[in-house]
Amino acid sequence: MANSKYEYVRDFEKDDSLLPNCAIVIRIDGHSFHRFSAVHDFAKPNDRAALDLMNHAARCVMSAFPDITLGYGISDEFSFLLRPSCVTFGRRDSKLVSTVVSIFTGAYIFAWPTYFPDKAMQYPPSFDGRAVLYPTRQTVVDYFSWRQVDAHINNLFNTCFWTLQRVDPKHGGPRKSAQEAEEVLRGTVAAQKNELLWRDYGVNYNDEAEMYKKGSILLYNLGERAGDGASKTSRLREEKRRRKEGVSVVHVDLIQESFWLRYPHILEP
Amino acid sequence: MANSKYEYVRDFEKDDSLLPNCAIVIRIDGHSFHRFSAVHDFAKPNDRAALDLMNHAARCVMSAFPDITLGYGISDEFSFLLRPSCVTFGRRDSKLVSTVVSIFTGAYIFAWPTYFPDKAMQYPPSFDGRAVLYPTRQTVVDYFSWRQVDAHINNLFNTCFWTLQRVDPKHGGPRKSAQEAEEVLRGTVAAQKNELLWRDYGVNYNDEAEMYKKGSILLYNLGERAGDGASKTSRLREEKRRRKEGVSVVHVDLIQESFWLRYPHILEP
Amino acid sequence: MANSKYEYVRDFEKDDSLLPNCAIVIRIDGHSFHRFSAVHDFAKPNDRAALDLMNHAARCVMSAFPDITLGYGISDEFSFLLRPSCVTFGRRDSKLVSTVVSIFTGAYIFAWPTYFPDKAMQYPPSFDGRAVLYPTRQTVVDYFSWRQVDAHINNLFNTCFWTLQRVDPKHGGPRKSAQEAEEVLRGTVAAQKNELLWRDYGVNYNDEAEMYKKGSILLYNLGERAGDGASKTSRLREEKRRRKEGVSVVHVDLIQESFWLRYPHILEP
Amino acid sequence: MANSKYEYVRDFEKDDSLLPNCAIVIRIDGHSFHRFSAVHDFAKPNDRAALDLMNHAARCVMSAFPDITLGYGISDEFSFLLRPSCVTFGRRDSKLVSTVVSIFTGAYIFAWPTYFPDKAMQYPPSFDGRAVLYPTRQTVVDYFSWRQVDAHINNLFNTCFWTLQRVDPKHGGPRKSAQEAEEVLRGTVAAQKNELLWRDYGVNYNDEAEMYKKGSILLYNLGERAGDGASKTSRLREEKRRRKEGVSVVHVDLIQESFWLRYPHILEP
Repeated sequence: MANSKYEYVRDFEKDDSLLPNCAIVIRIDGHSFHRFSAVHDFAKPNDRAALDLMNHAARCVMSAFPDITLGYGISDEFSFLLRPSCVTFGRRDSKLVSTVVSIFTGAYIFAWPTYFPDKAMQYPPSFDGRAVLYPTRQTVVDYFSWRQVDAHINNLFNTCFWTLQRVDPKHGGPRKSAQEAEEVLRGTVAAQKNELLWRDYGVNYNDEAEMYKKGSILLYNLGERAGDGASKTSRLREEKRRRKEGVSVVHVDLIQESFWLRYPHILEP
Repeated sequence: MANSKYEYVRDFEKDDSLLPNCAIVIRIDGHSFHRFSAVHDFAKPNDRAALDLMNHAARCVMSAFPDITLGYGISDEFSFLLRPSCVTFGRRDSKLVSTVVSIFTGAYIFAWPTYFPDKAMQYPPSFDGRAVLYPTRQTVVDYFSWRQVDAHINNLFNTCFWTLQRVDPKHGGPRKSAQEAEEVLRGTVAAQKNELLWRDYGVNYNDEAEMYKKGSILLYNLGERAGDGASKTSRLREEKRRRKEGVSVVHVDLIQESFWLRYPHILEP
Repeated sequence: MANSKYEYVRDFEKDDSLLPNCAIVIRIDGHSFHRFSAVHDFAKPNDRAALDLMNHAARCVMSAFPDITLGYGISDEFSFLLRPSCVTFGRRDSKLVSTVVSIFTGAYIFAWPTYFPDKAMQYPPSFDGRAVLYPTRQTVVDYFSWRQVDAHINNLFNTCFWTLQRVDPKHGGPRKSAQEAEEVLRGTVAAQKNELLWRDYGVNYNDEAEMYKKGSILLYNLGERAGDGASKTSRLREEKRRRKEGVSVVHVDLIQESFWLRYPHILEP
Repeated sequence: MANSKYEYVRDFEKDDSLLPNCAIVIRIDGHSFHRFSAVHDFAKPNDRAALDLMNHAARCVMSAFPDITLGYGISDEFSFLLRPSCVTFGRRDSKLVSTVVSIFTGAYIFAWPTYFPDKAMQYPPSFDGRAVLYPTRQTVVDYFSWRQVDAHINNLFNTCFWTLQRVDPKHGGPRKSAQEAEEVLRGTVAAQKNELLWRDYGVNYNDEAEMYKKGSILLYNLGERAGDGASKTSRLREEKRRRKEGVSVVHVDLIQESFWLRYPHILEP
């Protein structure tokens, strides 16, 4: 509809469409989740229901964007991989990022009562997001490896930090305060943290839940590529069937090349 | 915390900070609100509770961003004006836009039961957003004028469109179908629409609610600038007191220069 | 050196560094070369000395940027391919483009007397430039194919256009004016142009110089990759020796995959 | 002309048009001018002919871009101010910057023999450039003030640095080496440098040429705005006449507000 003499203000809108043929990673982060998790009394260092709710919200995002082939969540952050050929919203940066963040936020709040039936939400949380382009297979793989290494580092630290505050040492000393716990952990490397847990508190970090150690990987479990015996038609039919089953959540090592070989469709253009 | 050999992937993040000393307008739009309003049986052409809920969500955004001096809402869209000196989040485009959209989405869903106590939300709505820079006073004023002209055009059309479908013409003919209504309105100008409403349906468009005709303007009603008699100190004290009272909603003509003269603080740097 | 209260103006400079790990193509174009070539009486449709001077200027650019693996020139334009790993000038867009344009312009003017010893330059020509990112092997190959197809289309047209104006038709009619020539050529496809040249003017387009039909490809002729018999060390030594010999100019078909297989180093990261 | 299946590669070109209604400053810098000035034996600390040649090249740029209202040059750099309403080349960043740099480079090389009739250019110099947006009057004024403060700081330092190497101290000591000169100057403030020049070498910095102390300001000297007595028509006629006279070069203080009041047309939209 022809509008008005004011319409020239549209000329100030910039074209923010993202370079074609590059994988897009959209990462969203919780805003002030330290406070949000305190107010809502989340278990420490990991609250299973809260993580399940994050995964639920991520599934909703993936349902809305068929070009997302991978989601990866840790703590209050989630990363989504959009295949290079994605042309949704003309690849406009703001539109993609804001829509992903809005769907995630909405799904988190809307489904809260399902995951926390006995706990009313006190105020709605918020998230921010950003898009980053990764032009090669290697850079995409390294992005997710970066996040998983981060997940490991943070979870090991948090496991120590909360164990020190909650469990009396095996040899009878008193529990630590938060400040003392930080003091003890300052400058320690992974091996020292592992030993501290085991020697002083009888905790074997390896026994912690994979979900906490590895984060949550959301993908379409299309199965191994069928070998020589299968026709292309039957392969595509099988893939379609499995895609309908929807998103699977796994907690495995994605730093290993074997992960990407097992799910080749994640990195397809 | 020193991380890993994968950290280089951060180099792919672009710096998207917005040009300093320019006013920022962030506009958000509902996604598929045609469907959302149908599913939730919103009154047509305007649902008062739904608009009040939009205004509530906008207030929440304004509370979170003290640099927002003006909000303007029509239908399922809202525009926010951030003063040129705003440095929140380092003026990063994605961070600002995604956070505004997330807070808006969250507030809308969280407060839904207050505004629709008898109507359960069927699914969470989503919004997208974008930031646009306006470097001069005139371009800012023209941006909001553009939106208000649009509000007028759309509301006049919608008022006709729904009147034709709901009210028997004064002279006894049958109500129109949606398709017939579109047919009747095609190519008509404002004066013709006004006359159609009045002559055939006895509806005086001027009597429609200002909220529907003008949209909703959210601002801090700091009062007229005190004149020569008042000291600067007493002026600032008065402004602070009124700011605490929070955001006011008005439905007036902002295309007139008098609006901007009455609330000079909106356009202050 | 600490400067002054004015230094804040640097905050208005945007970061325009180009996405890493993507090939960069910088294309420069002559400004108003129609006029420049008329004033300097260039031969039509192709002036050999002028094209040689373009190639010389392009060599100077390639000497200054070791990351350029390919140059491609047609008429008054040149494209340069910078390898994805290039980090010169921090990959800053403006700095890269403006420097390439400046070196090209300078070399063109400085070397003019060598290529046109009997013709004084009347005024200095100017060029503009732009950088475009191509994230995959295929898009890089297609970019250069696009330019070579364009070269072919333009040269075939120009050959007809000037032949019609300069040569009496074989069958005795008069030469055409520029306007008549355009008329004759309007709407013709390649096959018709070829036939027109041959049937009416006795010109076999295939006999035209490869330089005019294919454009000029500038590359380091590193030779075929040595096979199994050669050690990696001897291969690298050989490459280094040939690189020192400098840039070769060839006029071949680069649309064929064989071109890229023959010079694999062009597309190395 | 419809082209080919390769034309999709144009989709990778980004839209880099600059925000409307903002002043654009394009600054160009000499590349490796330390070496260039050494090879061409420029006088130190300032070579009058070289600076005049820079000013000539800047005039050529200003002739080509009527929207440039101000040029400011110091040493081997030049800044150009394009008025906010400029729409040349659709305000495309790369096109504007590369064209300015190309014209400047070309004019510098082409006019060299006029400014250095007895000195052949050994190799062509090159320049780079960048565009920066300044959205307000104040930021534009502060940008040029920043450059003029820089000019002062650098020229005072260089005057000391070369005086120490070339003139025997008044009190009979030997000349300094470059390294000794740097040593002497390290950490000194302006007042100390002034005193050093005067007390030890009899040089009054105030007597240095204004061109060296203030840099070169290129503008259209449109004269004072005619007062009440003059009609608008006669004012515009007078402005047109003076504009035809072309660019003036002045060496004055532009940090003072009086400069901008004297030449109000520089900052007109």
